[in-house]
Amino acid sequence: MTRAETDSLAEVLTLDRIETNIFRGWSWHTAPTRVFGGHVAAQALIAAGRTVAADRPVHSLHAYFLLPGDPTAPIIYEVDPIRDGRSFTTRRVVAIQHGKAIFNMSASFHHTVDGFEHQSAMPPTPLPDDTATPPEEIFADNGGVEPFFLRYLDVLPIATSAQDGSIEPPVISYLGDPRAPHQRRWFRARGVLPDDPLYHACAVAYASDLHLITTTVLPHRTPAGPRISLASLDHAMWFHRPFRADEWLLYIQDSPSASGERGFARGEIYTTDGRLVVSVAQEGLMRLAR
Amino acid sequence: MTRAETDSLAEVLTLDRIETNIFRGWSWHTAPTRVFGGHVAAQALIAAGRTVAADRPVHSLHAYFLLPGDPTAPIIYEVDPIRDGRSFTTRRVVAIQHGKAIFNMSASFHHTVDGFEHQSAMPPTPLPDDTATPPEEIFADNGGVEPFFLRYLDVLPIATSAQDGSIEPPVISYLGDPRAPHQRRWFRARGVLPDDPLYHACAVAYASDLHLITTTVLPHRTPAGPRISLASLDHAMWFHRPFRADEWLLYIQDSPSASGERGFARGEIYTTDGRLVVSVAQEGLMRLAR
Repeated sequence: MTRAETDSLAEVLTLDRIETNIFRGWSWHTAPTRVFGGHVAAQALIAAGRTVAADRPVHSLHAYFLLPGDPTAPIIYEVDPIRDGRSFTTRRVVAIQHGKAIFNMSASFHHTVDGFEHQSAMPPTPLPDDTATPPEEIFADNGGVEPFFLRYLDVLPIATSAQDGSIEPPVISYLGDPRAPHQRRWFRARGVLPDDPLYHACAVAYASDLHLITTTVLPHRTPAGPRISLASLDHAMWFHRPFRADEWLLYIQDSPSASGERGFARGEIYTTDGRLVVSVAQEGLMRLAR
Repeated sequence: MTRAETDSLAEVLTLDRIETNIFRGWSWHTAPTRVFGGHVAAQALIAAGRTVAADRPVHSLHAYFLLPGDPTAPIIYEVDPIRDGRSFTTRRVVAIQHGKAIFNMSASFHHTVDGFEHQSAMPPTPLPDDTATPPEEIFADNGGVEPFFLRYLDVLPIATSAQDGSIEPPVISYLGDPRAPHQRRWFRARGVLPDDPLYHACAVAYASDLHLITTTVLPHRTPAGPRISLASLDHAMWFHRPFRADEWLLYIQDSPSASGERGFARGEIYTTDGRLVVSVAQEGLMRLAR
């Protein structure tokens, strides 16, 4: 079962409200064999945000991916309003399919206020309209619908099989030798999103799960293999400053560690004018594919 | 009400099991005016870990601090066994006092297995027994009981009033001018902890909340003030490799961003022989004290 009209990011982010704190989300009309993690994170965040006053934007989220999502069934998002404080609102969300929790998230919302300001400087980086920047590619995890444009500055995307998340060595082979776990890309949502800042946070939640974890395999790639299977385990985001997801954003990623079949990656997201708008952290499972 | 014997880290980490998934923890015998955040995080982690098979060590946690803890009352930890998977076990914990959630956490556990290995190198750093390293200081948030030794390599600790978390400018003044948001320290638990790796993870969960968020104020300090009030908002940890918390650990901290009364800080924890064992991320509230 899919909702026939779910063929744009705006539709993915439009949930049915079943009760005050219970929502239903849908997969793409043309769905892949499993639901993309960022898709679930974005829908869980919009569900949480719909229970919070609009003058409190989201400033952070922390989530675990528990089970693969089934794109042929709707996803139920149950929101626990664990705190409504004077300055902060906190929500817990569990995403449910077939009687099981497939994902859980906590998110925090805070009113907008001026405060102390500092940020790490954006490293010198070719801008999206720079001729040195590769042309944009379209992210297509969804069998035809393309919510994001991507421009890879360092490495080409590692092809991921839709079935099991494995990385195919023939695709890796032309990407060159093992390298330091660091990569950069520009991305933006296709089309124009509504002005509601929550949509932009959800769109970046979606896109921030795109290939972040592939940073962890960069030191371990070889032309002859090995085949590495990757899966996101958790996801954390901190929203530092306002931004639009339908304008180009720079996603700088590194991986400080891999060990015990788990790789850890971090991301910093900048606007074209160098404002640091989001930090991301994620651990992923990295296994030799059987 | 405090438990008379809670005067060691081992006692803090010894919870009463009220039901299969419900635990009761205690504050220090000589308690401060509010419960230290790391104390609650450590107790929540031991509660979660007590519901998981011992052959699955914790590999990550994500938490929010919701309300100040009352050290005169016990804290109830309610564990939700949200997933018992083939390779991973996930738990959610809510800490409750006086009918309200004061803290919530999710934690994930994974069996030990060999995998791809890389890590960021430990920067050249004076070792704890180096004569260039300042003498150890004793952390004492608890009115006399000292669970940790600390050796500050860059800045002296910023004194924090026990009542409201404010930083007093007379104490800041001798610490020098504003500086880049980066600091390092060695720390270890006092005494010898039991061999159970969960104890060591909990001890580092406790200690990792110590002053991490003060990294965010380093660029904003001036001898004349301002008075800045700090409070931890969330806490995330990734346990990469085994370690002992009763041996010296290097805690390297930076703050990529502060904005909107919130500062974001990250930490990397290394053993003396340069193994990266834990990554930490935390956002804190940083306000001009009224």
